Amino acid sequence: MSVLIVGSTALDSIKTPKTENPRLLGGSASHAAVAASFFGPVQLVGVVGNDFPKRYLELYRKHRIDLEGLQILPGKTFHWSGEYEANMNNRRTLLTELGVFETFTPKLPAAQRKTPFVLLANIAPALQHHVLDQMQRPKFVAADTMDLWLNIALSDLLRLIKRLDLFVLNDSEAQQLTKADTVFGALKQIHRLGPKYVIIKQGSHGSILSGPRGLFLCPAYPLPRVVDPTGAGDSFVGGLMGYLASTKGSIDQNIRRAMVHGSVVASFCCEGFGLQRTTRSTRREINHRVKELESLTRF
Amino acid sequence: MSVLIVGSTALDSIKTPKTENPRLLGGSASHAAVAASFFGPVQLVGVVGNDFPKRYLELYRKHRIDLEGLQILPGKTFHWSGEYEANMNNRRTLLTELGVFETFTPKLPAAQRKTPFVLLANIAPALQHHVLDQMQRPKFVAADTMDLWLNIALSDLLRLIKRLDLFVLNDSEAQQLTKADTVFGALKQIHRLGPKYVIIKQGSHGSILSGPRGLFLCPAYPLPRVVDPTGAGDSFVGGLMGYLASTKGSIDQNIRRAMVHGSVVASFCCEGFGLQRTTRSTRREINHRVKELESLTRF
Repeated sequence: MSVLIVGSTALDSIKTPKTENPRLLGGSASHAAVAASFFGPVQLVGVVGNDFPKRYLELYRKHRIDLEGLQILPGKTFHWSGEYEANMNNRRTLLTELGVFETFTPKLPAAQRKTPFVLLANIAPALQHHVLDQMQRPKFVAADTMDLWLNIALSDLLRLIKRLDLFVLNDSEAQQLTKADTVFGALKQIHRLGPKYVIIKQGSHGSILSGPRGLFLCPAYPLPRVVDPTGAGDSFVGGLMGYLASTKGSIDQNIRRAMVHGSVVASFCCEGFGLQRTTRSTRREINHRVKELESLTRF
Repeated sequence: MSVLIVGSTALDSIKTPKTENPRLLGGSASHAAVAASFFGPVQLVGVVGNDFPKRYLELYRKHRIDLEGLQILPGKTFHWSGEYEANMNNRRTLLTELGVFETFTPKLPAAQRKTPFVLLANIAPALQHHVLDQMQRPKFVAADTMDLWLNIALSDLLRLIKRLDLFVLNDSEAQQLTKADTVFGALKQIHRLGPKYVIIKQGSHGSILSGPRGLFLCPAYPLPRVVDPTGAGDSFVGGLMGYLASTKGSIDQNIRRAMVHGSVVASFCCEGFGLQRTTRSTRREINHRVKELESLTRF
């Protein structure tokens, strides 16, 4: 089955102490869509300006991503610029130019409204609602978010969480949302907001699922060197949804392995700037790392 | 087989925003010895003053810990006092009174010098050396440490690391020691200092082993509420060594499960002040949580 993904489609300029990488292909939907594409068909919903490099459209196409829902409008593509410290853990935003995103209203092609798996990747909750409003009885709806929306669009976000099967957020966002002392306390509280499944991402420490079958502690693939973690969370949730859509059987049966596949795609993401390493990886490489993770966690 | 454990034997006064807990039984050797005692015989090497409460000697005895190597000297028992913030992650030391530890020279009873498993729990590296010098061909030697010794006794510590089979430290200590960007980079560098096995502890995120069979990602048992994490690291390494000493077969075959058992004992430690919860736990409870961890990590 296929996955419809809405989110930001952006140009990212990423500075580290050693390098500058201007105008890489970025945005939550780009990372998530490429990650999901390793497992099956993907439909991308987003907007770019007429300055969007042709080679990036070609990159989407190379991954067989359906671009019917990608609007190309006069104006500038969303541009984000950030700087990482040497340890790659702390980053600060240098610049955010919304460009054509400022007035973006996603409008889904009729053919896409029946897509069974929907991923509302990180973007304003109002836009996530707007996409979900157009869907016809999706089988499984997941959303990711970021601290910005907790700060400036909390009521939209809370209303969205009610509509989800799976809500994904990171540990500091979970703490901000619930004020809980531990992630396990936070998971309990977030379930009460609506979703059957909740995942808390913990960066290089992996992620934790809470669902009807209890908890799952999902490992991160061990990397001796991180080049650029931008988009790793988006790759995780994209890979997860892509894998899930590709499987038979129940969500409950498949969601653990889906998370591990997402975790592995995120590890490739961290090994290059932007999508440079992810786009060079293969299903075979992904399967190999999934097997490795199996043996790294068995006791 | 039995485990000889040297380390601090202390009275801990622990403040949290809600409670004060004066003069609890604490110290690295106390936590490690009680943790190890669930799996087999333990010999404790340390020193206390004549103010040391009788009920704490009884607690050691209840766990069948051999106290022949515990000196009781005129003077005050080592006293540490610390305060935790509400989230239980940040703590600051309010007071350290060395007492009888100031002039402590461990002297092992003849019968203990052939103990096959040796745990040099956190204490000054000079004392760790001093104990190791008295041992006769131990089968497996492990040591834990803390940031203090990296700051004030680095050359002693580096000389100690060379003599170990297993070196255990936490992530921030590993970063301080190696300046590596990732734990996996740090593990590589620490192997070059000598030990065949290196474990980096990551608190509630679990721990990572690096050894001849590669890496193992050991989970932490998920706790909805942490009462007091003091001694959790000592409980982890104590449980690990106790389990390892109780098994047949090679270290390589058993060390993963040993870590998981240590991790579970550490989870009990966190659920009460000082040793209050650990000492009430049973081997049956430990086995139950080990099974749970197995099912929480399978995919």
